Amino acid sequence: MNIAVVLFPRVTALDAIGPYETLQRLPDATVTFVGHRRGEVRTENGFLGLTVDATFDEVTAPDVVVVPGGIGSRALLKDEVVLDWVRRAHRTSRFTTSVCTGSLILAAAGLLEGRTATTHWGAMDVLGGLGAVPTSARVVEHREERIITAAGVSSGIDMALRLAELLTDRQTAEALQLTIEYDPQPPFDAGSVEKAGPDVLARANELALTKD
Amino acid sequence: MNIAVVLFPRVTALDAIGPYETLQRLPDATVTFVGHRRGEVRTENGFLGLTVDATFDEVTAPDVVVVPGGIGSRALLKDEVVLDWVRRAHRTSRFTTSVCTGSLILAAAGLLEGRTATTHWGAMDVLGGLGAVPTSARVVEHREERIITAAGVSSGIDMALRLAELLTDRQTAEALQLTIEYDPQPPFDAGSVEKAGPDVLARANELALTKD
Repeated sequence: MNIAVVLFPRVTALDAIGPYETLQRLPDATVTFVGHRRGEVRTENGFLGLTVDATFDEVTAPDVVVVPGGIGSRALLKDEVVLDWVRRAHRTSRFTTSVCTGSLILAAAGLLEGRTATTHWGAMDVLGGLGAVPTSARVVEHREERIITAAGVSSGIDMALRLAELLTDRQTAEALQLTIEYDPQPPFDAGSVEKAGPDVLARANELALTKD
Repeated sequence: MNIAVVLFPRVTALDAIGPYETLQRLPDATVTFVGHRRGEVRTENGFLGLTVDATFDEVTAPDVVVVPGGIGSRALLKDEVVLDWVRRAHRTSRFTTSVCTGSLILAAAGLLEGRTATTHWGAMDVLGGLGAVPTSARVVEHREERIITAAGVSSGIDMALRLAELLTDRQTAEALQLTIEYDPQPPFDAGSVEKAGPDVLARANELALTKD
């Protein structure tokens, strides 16, 4: 099973690493981090380097595609190399998935036209503008169309566990949940706009890495 | 605020990236990934490269230390360069923290002698053998001693949100929870040994990357 995770400059690390941590542990899985050029890309603020191991040309028919988001995803919405790759990969993939603003890339590639999909809460309008039907669910699954989109950043972990079940079986997916000890106990309950309330939302907007 | 995240060959990526994703967003934070040598290290199975940007010598007095785990952590338990660095960094840090088997390194450095601490469920005995008092809590906090340990892999996200509160204030920490949309909705409830049951545990052991 070949799993391709897309990387690009100014990616949000956890968008990619959340799913990676589960999917790499599937039986017989190979994960390849793919991008424009082999070598390092840096996350949004430049604090972390992640390695691209293969170019888009080199990864032609992955079984699973994971497209993460981040500030840098906006630069890819008119990048025909990326969009063409996503379209071609999706023709033969078992599942094409996104986390956070990665769904904007799937939408720009035409995969979400008229379909429900999710993204980070701050990008719902942009997703709608690209032809999808924005939905505030944590994970939106179109099983027949083989497309799964996840909400912001950490939601890729939830998505990947469900994807693991679809690719193997429930017991294997539960075993992976146990392996990554995903028994969440967040110290607060501010993980969605509704739960956080307006003051916390305002503070989140103040802290945003950039306003684009 | 200088945050140092330790990297080493065969690290578990999510152990490091879970806390990173929150902590990098703290006001005025700088995150430095530190290791033996500048350049790339690969995760357990080699699928992902992460960049070490500074050597241990170059990071002398971080405000926050994060030590992730992974198969490679075992090789560091007698590595005096790492253990000395951890001891010295802890003298002046505001908080010294670990995720997963990163706590074995804190224990080997002598920081957990006679103290309660947590780790991945598969490493509790090893932690006890290193002088700590193993506790199956998701996050164990010794505020006065400035030490926080987190359980397996994904628990670093929960730990980092609490740490964000300790370093700033509750509203800021909640805003970061909202930013990373940490509103967990795992598709199953198998995130701990107790919840998973013996069959899932057996499957997890089958799927383990290595048995050490």
